[in-house]
Amino acid sequence: MSTSKYKNNKQNYNRYSKNKKNAKGKKGGKPGKGLRFTGTSPRKKEEIQAIVKPPVKISFLGGLNEIGKNITLIECEGDIIIIDCGMAFPDGDMLGVDLVIPDFSYIEQNYDKIRGIVLTHGHEDHIGGLPFLLSKVNVPIYGTPLTLGLVENKLKEHSLMSSAKLNVVNSGSSIQLGCMEVKFIHVNHSIPDSVAFAVKTPAGTIVHSGDFKIDCTPINGEMIDLSSFARIGDEGVLALLCESTNADRKGYTPTERKVSEGLDALFRRGEKYRIIIATFASNVNRVQQIINCAEKYGRKVAFSGRSMVNYMEVAKKLGYLRVPESLLIDLDMLNRFPPEQVVLVTTGSQGEPMSALSRMAYSDHRKVMVGEGDFIIISANPIPGNEKTVGNVVDELLKRGCKVIYESMYDVHVSGHACQEELKILHRLVKPKYFIPVHGEQKHLRKHAELAEFLGMDKKDIFIGDVGATIELHEKYMKEVAPVPAGKVFVDGLGVGDVGSIVLRDRKHLGQDGLIIIVASLDVYDGHVISGPDIVSRGFVYVRESEGLLEEVRQKALVILEDCAENNIHEWGVIKNRIKEDVAKLISQRTRRTPMILPILQEV
Amino acid sequence: MSTSKYKNNKQNYNRYSKNKKNAKGKKGGKPGKGLRFTGTSPRKKEEIQAIVKPPVKISFLGGLNEIGKNITLIECEGDIIIIDCGMAFPDGDMLGVDLVIPDFSYIEQNYDKIRGIVLTHGHEDHIGGLPFLLSKVNVPIYGTPLTLGLVENKLKEHSLMSSAKLNVVNSGSSIQLGCMEVKFIHVNHSIPDSVAFAVKTPAGTIVHSGDFKIDCTPINGEMIDLSSFARIGDEGVLALLCESTNADRKGYTPTERKVSEGLDALFRRGEKYRIIIATFASNVNRVQQIINCAEKYGRKVAFSGRSMVNYMEVAKKLGYLRVPESLLIDLDMLNRFPPEQVVLVTTGSQGEPMSALSRMAYSDHRKVMVGEGDFIIISANPIPGNEKTVGNVVDELLKRGCKVIYESMYDVHVSGHACQEELKILHRLVKPKYFIPVHGEQKHLRKHAELAEFLGMDKKDIFIGDVGATIELHEKYMKEVAPVPAGKVFVDGLGVGDVGSIVLRDRKHLGQDGLIIIVASLDVYDGHVISGPDIVSRGFVYVRESEGLLEEVRQKALVILEDCAENNIHEWGVIKNRIKEDVAKLISQRTRRTPMILPILQEV
Repeated sequence: MSTSKYKNNKQNYNRYSKNKKNAKGKKGGKPGKGLRFTGTSPRKKEEIQAIVKPPVKISFLGGLNEIGKNITLIECEGDIIIIDCGMAFPDGDMLGVDLVIPDFSYIEQNYDKIRGIVLTHGHEDHIGGLPFLLSKVNVPIYGTPLTLGLVENKLKEHSLMSSAKLNVVNSGSSIQLGCMEVKFIHVNHSIPDSVAFAVKTPAGTIVHSGDFKIDCTPINGEMIDLSSFARIGDEGVLALLCESTNADRKGYTPTERKVSEGLDALFRRGEKYRIIIATFASNVNRVQQIINCAEKYGRKVAFSGRSMVNYMEVAKKLGYLRVPESLLIDLDMLNRFPPEQVVLVTTGSQGEPMSALSRMAYSDHRKVMVGEGDFIIISANPIPGNEKTVGNVVDELLKRGCKVIYESMYDVHVSGHACQEELKILHRLVKPKYFIPVHGEQKHLRKHAELAEFLGMDKKDIFIGDVGATIELHEKYMKEVAPVPAGKVFVDGLGVGDVGSIVLRDRKHLGQDGLIIIVASLDVYDGHVISGPDIVSRGFVYVRESEGLLEEVRQKALVILEDCAENNIHEWGVIKNRIKEDVAKLISQRTRRTPMILPILQEV
Repeated sequence: MSTSKYKNNKQNYNRYSKNKKNAKGKKGGKPGKGLRFTGTSPRKKEEIQAIVKPPVKISFLGGLNEIGKNITLIECEGDIIIIDCGMAFPDGDMLGVDLVIPDFSYIEQNYDKIRGIVLTHGHEDHIGGLPFLLSKVNVPIYGTPLTLGLVENKLKEHSLMSSAKLNVVNSGSSIQLGCMEVKFIHVNHSIPDSVAFAVKTPAGTIVHSGDFKIDCTPINGEMIDLSSFARIGDEGVLALLCESTNADRKGYTPTERKVSEGLDALFRRGEKYRIIIATFASNVNRVQQIINCAEKYGRKVAFSGRSMVNYMEVAKKLGYLRVPESLLIDLDMLNRFPPEQVVLVTTGSQGEPMSALSRMAYSDHRKVMVGEGDFIIISANPIPGNEKTVGNVVDELLKRGCKVIYESMYDVHVSGHACQEELKILHRLVKPKYFIPVHGEQKHLRKHAELAEFLGMDKKDIFIGDVGATIELHEKYMKEVAPVPAGKVFVDGLGVGDVGSIVLRDRKHLGQDGLIIIVASLDVYDGHVISGPDIVSRGFVYVRESEGLLEEVRQKALVILEDCAENNIHEWGVIKNRIKEDVAKLISQRTRRTPMILPILQEV
């Protein structure tokens, strides 16, 4: 694995290699902050040990009852560590919002306690919130090489790299953060270099699974380190926090290697065509398999889409993607090769409107025109909510005469998350006293809780929480305590948090029904109309066909304004409300619609 | 089957009973309008027959490359019949649109040729456009009893029932419309009384499948009339128009009866709970099975949701729903019975925001409160695009402690559409010369075309069209001719067609980014600012936190206005454009957002 990159970047990077423990936390290894007992009778030893142990608090700033925005805080004896710092994509009703990040105020309030952020892997829902957090509090970050390579890219975009404190930790190693020792445990997932954590706190060990699956034959690197989970489980685990993405799916997630066979068959089927494959930019192992196939069948490979190019650059530089010499070509060179000798690997597998594949489908891509000579493979399943947009892109490609392989037509996609049988294995190895399902909507969390119950856990030892929930764990009890501040912060353009519920409500109103503006200039002395009222509408009706209606609105407003002037009503709030109400009534009668009505008055 | 209803309604209803042919068309049975040959040598007989036959034109005003809005025109020798007249639900980008109907201008232009509308079944995507068409042209309508019962409800809502010409035709019967004889053939589908059509035209027979599946053990009525398809196929079929909804699904759609077992198991599992079942209001057979189960387990049944109540009323009145005496209770009576002795059948299986189930989930239902005592079954699969909203409703119900059975967790839903093996059987029985896949998006149409090719059809005998497409068919050829006017007409409130692309574009812009209004009063003589400029924004930023930015906008606008006055620029178009451009630039620099900017000037 090439890590030369980090050597040139020493002010930002510290390194942790396997089986060495470096205490970097401010208060590293301060034992026995709680009650101390110097001597006791043997009979009560166990009991007293239990009393000696302090409690540990776990707070969820995201990732419960939602997909994405994963961030968990573990707090023990005045030290806090943060596990992941993700973002989420906006729901359909968050109009104009680019992305959603956690509310960081609890972290800001407790800045002095934060010992570090540990990252499980490099997906956006686990690292995407980092730039926004770091711009408020500069906390040291710990992650595996690929994860930090992707974080670095992200921080550079936000001009935060020069001040960031990045610490490379290889899986298998441990670090000490305050009173807590965090062990990085290798797991399989749809991005390389993913880890789970075993956090040894004075209160007991807490295992956080991160995102994982059990892949006995992974493409790159080793199988999930089940032995470590087993050893830690045997030593005793206070709580397991385990991801729930596929908790409602039976059986096992197939190995990533299965995709190779599917791809191979399709490369043969599409041998006379140009092959275009859309997949997640972060799925380095998937791209590796495509590259292997391309090499086997003598095709050059080009990347399309900004994130695909960026991810592959990082993965190649750090040695996670092995590309034979001269196999890669620039997108500009694509058309210089015969179609049957190239493969284009592109973003857009979710039908995202601005992605490379969408632009190809709608003939809006500057460099790639698609048509009857193209064999297009969508190597991903639609994430819930994206089914329609993916379907639309497929339809457009088909209309242009492309062959399109989509959804589960062939074995060209497997999940990166554990299904029920894999979850059971982790539960059985870790043998936790308490269980908290994480990363999922309510239905996933519930299913996962049911699974734990099926394995014999007591309902009272399982906690299903919501964003903000805080749970106190102790050898003797688990109890929910007062929640911490938490929620959704919207990012829109450069604005972070300046779009809230009122702005969204207005956007929704404007988007659904449009608006009618009524402008008038009033005499500053007697309130009579000097100019207007003028009517401006947008998004309401096709104006040229509705002149009569808008003239009615104008007349209605004029009557109200003059009536107010006659009756010495000069309070603008009162006048505006009368206009709003009467015009709304008129519009509703005529059209059954409820546009936003905005009276604007000026004094002259 | 009770049909007493129609007897009291004679001015609107004509009746066609089995195996009687009534020629009701204006030009019923006018043979040989084309070339006539009185004698000929035997050698050329076949050839001449082919020449004698006129061509037939089929036009698609909807249903191709879309789900919904099904409407097909068959035109031969100056006669036109219309098959179905559906609506579609708006896509996510059709903001504020209530529903989408076909563009009827081709029908209006050819009013004198229209001999009638024949309806395959009572689903909205096949009858929902009728009120809008009938308000323009009063064309006679032909359908089976249940279909017309549902049409009647719909027309009453639009006050169109008194003028409508409804004609009941039982499946198995034929009617003559102009030069065409239309045979109603019984099929299975997710609503009773569904039919396919065999249209005998002077050019040859055209078979339209409607929506269908092959159910050998239907809940109500008989199995699809495969014998009729076989007989018609043996007599020779010029073209098959066949639905494609499930053309990408392998195998067979299971029988509706399979749901009985699934429901029975769940009634037993939920015996201590109140049972709430959400399904499509139109799925009378599904509700019949629920009623049968309720009877077996001694539960009363209540209906919730306006469309559920309406559909069940019609179905009961016409004898399609058999309800034991005193089993049904009013929703108001629900709470007077112990929870384990009632079943609530409700709308909302698609997570529609205003539906009964959604309102229960969000504690917004006036009469039904749900919680830990409820066992909720969603007896439907999410239609593509609805996955997220259905998921949200399920999550809310789970959070309230309800048990929820959703998606394919148990056998509580089967499709109403034919899968590949069923489609193959219909193709094989009908043996058409030409094939046109209908009712589906591009991917469904393509898959269906591939299926026909797999069965041995020549590619050139298969036509995949788009909305507006018109195809001319003849014994000797099939060719696409000039398209007819067609498209999407948006219904928003009372407005039909007054919301178009400009209004939608504005709504999208307003919804995504909000707006900034800049109002100023100018001196009528010299153009200097007398009042303002005032800045009003909605859906852009939280104003109280962005006062600085809005003040900058005000200053920028003021400078431009005064500058224009100084330089004798009085053309408002020019002034407004300068304000728009400069303010947009400023806003973009500061926020990376692009709100709509609306300068409004008044002369004083």
